Amino acid sequence: MKRRLLLVSNSTLHGGGYLQHFASNLTRRILFVPYALHDRDAYSKTARDKFKTLGGGNTFRLLKSLYDSKLVTEIRKRVLEDGIPYMGSSAGTNVSTISINTTNDMPIVYPPTFAAIGLVPFNINPHYLDADPNSKHMGETREQRIVQYHEEPDTPCVLGLREGSMLLVEGSKATLLGSTKARLFQRGKHTTEYEPGSDLSFLLTDAQ
Amino acid sequence: MKRRLLLVSNSTLHGGGYLQHFASNLTRRILFVPYALHDRDAYSKTARDKFKTLGGGNTFRLLKSLYDSKLVTEIRKRVLEDGIPYMGSSAGTNVSTISINTTNDMPIVYPPTFAAIGLVPFNINPHYLDADPNSKHMGETREQRIVQYHEEPDTPCVLGLREGSMLLVEGSKATLLGSTKARLFQRGKHTTEYEPGSDLSFLLTDAQ
Repeated sequence: MKRRLLLVSNSTLHGGGYLQHFASNLTRRILFVPYALHDRDAYSKTARDKFKTLGGGNTFRLLKSLYDSKLVTEIRKRVLEDGIPYMGSSAGTNVSTISINTTNDMPIVYPPTFAAIGLVPFNINPHYLDADPNSKHMGETREQRIVQYHEEPDTPCVLGLREGSMLLVEGSKATLLGSTKARLFQRGKHTTEYEPGSDLSFLLTDAQ
Repeated sequence: MKRRLLLVSNSTLHGGGYLQHFASNLTRRILFVPYALHDRDAYSKTARDKFKTLGGGNTFRLLKSLYDSKLVTEIRKRVLEDGIPYMGSSAGTNVSTISINTTNDMPIVYPPTFAAIGLVPFNINPHYLDADPNSKHMGETREQRIVQYHEEPDTPCVLGLREGSMLLVEGSKATLLGSTKARLFQRGKHTTEYEPGSDLSFLLTDAQ
């Protein structure tokens, strides 16, 4: 499999510009899919000013637009068979995985399915956030939400990518990059923390 | 219309017990629908220990279970035509509105539609949270998410119910109750803050 993916937690890091924090991992120009934000021209310009990428916004809107435009199968084929590189951040990362079941976004539109492009056989939770012990807010923590997902049958691993974190996939090799640790949730198992530089290739096998 | 609803932001308030903060608004026992959490027995027990209510949990799971059980139309009919009181908190509030498009929950399962029971002609965002100006997290604020929803065509009002807040609906009269203000988002208009005690009956008219 020729797969080359860069799956990024988030396109803007506190104190940095749009996509600035992972510019060093970019070596070529690729297609920008701006469907996730309403004002596509302005959004495209923001990205173009920096560089082309498959960027963030609302995951439901992005996935629905990809299905409406019949791009899901096409992107999968081009990336997995032809080796076209894929970069996603935030919503763009969610839609690259097996499903959007672990997005943080608000379900502002109804896509025909939550199944996504499926460039990797697991799910990612971008912008992964640790619980704040001082918070008085009673909404579920991110971890509680992912645990709820794993109460459902046959649910795959979820890689929680904190802001500043990204996953580089080259064929059957996956490497955690960036400046923050990632947290892996596996159904019925303990969660595990991984440092930047960790080899996460085992996530690419179907038997994970 | 005989409608009698109590739509609550959240079932647990920091420092208080489950549903304790609005116990004073409860006068009778009603059906508890525990579908939103996986362990229905434990969840039912938690509610039963306090009192019966249509409670929180995951909105997607709750709505899907209601459709799977063919309860959506039945609940609508019983509440709007027969005057059976409806109480919801968090997920139970989301599913009572026109759609679940403004839930905060993770889309862990795929319901057949985001259209909900439709006991009121607008949407609610429970656990509404003001942006934290000191946060370094780059995920969208709650307000940004609701603004994205209103970029879509023909989207109704969204009432942001902060924790501690609830809406009492009696026929064509709606009153904000509780200890916190609520924030109303209207497509193409400025947002408005309402104090506890405010008359929000205008939200019940279709022309809002």
